[in-house]
Amino acid sequence: MEQIPILKMGSILLVSIQVDMHDRLAMQLQNDLTEKIVSSSARGVLIDISSLGMVDSFIGQMLSNIAGMSRILDAETVVVGMQPAVAITLVELGLTLKGVRTALNVEQGMDYLKSFASSQPENFIDEYS
Amino acid sequence: MEQIPILKMGSILLVSIQVDMHDRLAMQLQNDLTEKIVSSSARGVLIDISSLGMVDSFIGQMLSNIAGMSRILDAETVVVGMQPAVAITLVELGLTLKGVRTALNVEQGMDYLKSFASSQPENFIDEYS
Repeated sequence: MEQIPILKMGSILLVSIQVDMHDRLAMQLQNDLTEKIVSSSARGVLIDISSLGMVDSFIGQMLSNIAGMSRILDAETVVVGMQPAVAITLVELGLTLKGVRTALNVEQGMDYLKSFASSQPENFIDEYS
Repeated sequence: MEQIPILKMGSILLVSIQVDMHDRLAMQLQNDLTEKIVSSSARGVLIDISSLGMVDSFIGQMLSNIAGMSRILDAETVVVGMQPAVAITLVELGLTLKGVRTALNVEQGMDYLKSFASSQPENFIDEYS
């Protein structure tokens, strides 16, 4: 089960992180995600971290990397579902999720991705977004 | 991290099972899901099992239970993303996912839940479905 599933919903890819991330898994997620963005012409990536009770610098860096890679591939990344304790810890540790957009929950993240895409000249299939 | 997140998308609840299920976790998922169906007035439940390389009788029973409970609460359940090997094993073991609807992927599952809901007299917020 050492693979994080990527769910395609219209032009948005949804990733729900539920397990402890380690080097190999993070690397695999980045590879899988970038490949899926290209193969499915995705315009948005939604990462749900509501299961994570802790976000350390490693996970923070991974999220920043994913956002950066997606942006180059013309897809916007939104991280949703952050627990209040996680936000507190991030600030206390001085960690900034560089280049990462956040939203309260999946619905608001979807709304943002929709408005982001509609402000772009490209076509955007919003059947599921 | 011993909690499976339930993502609300309009009137559909999305659950992605990525970890080994054991008794307590299965029980908790059933509780969380039924509570969330009631609190969010959900009309559909989408369970993604694309991470599962194996579905035994315990998981099969859990899926059947969830489908049964949801149905009583007037929500339809669809299981999506089953790996081919899982389907083969299920048949070979003689396990039937009683009362459980399946679809190939999240998009087709969403389509089914939409058409199910639109055939119902109740109103159905399909903003995200």
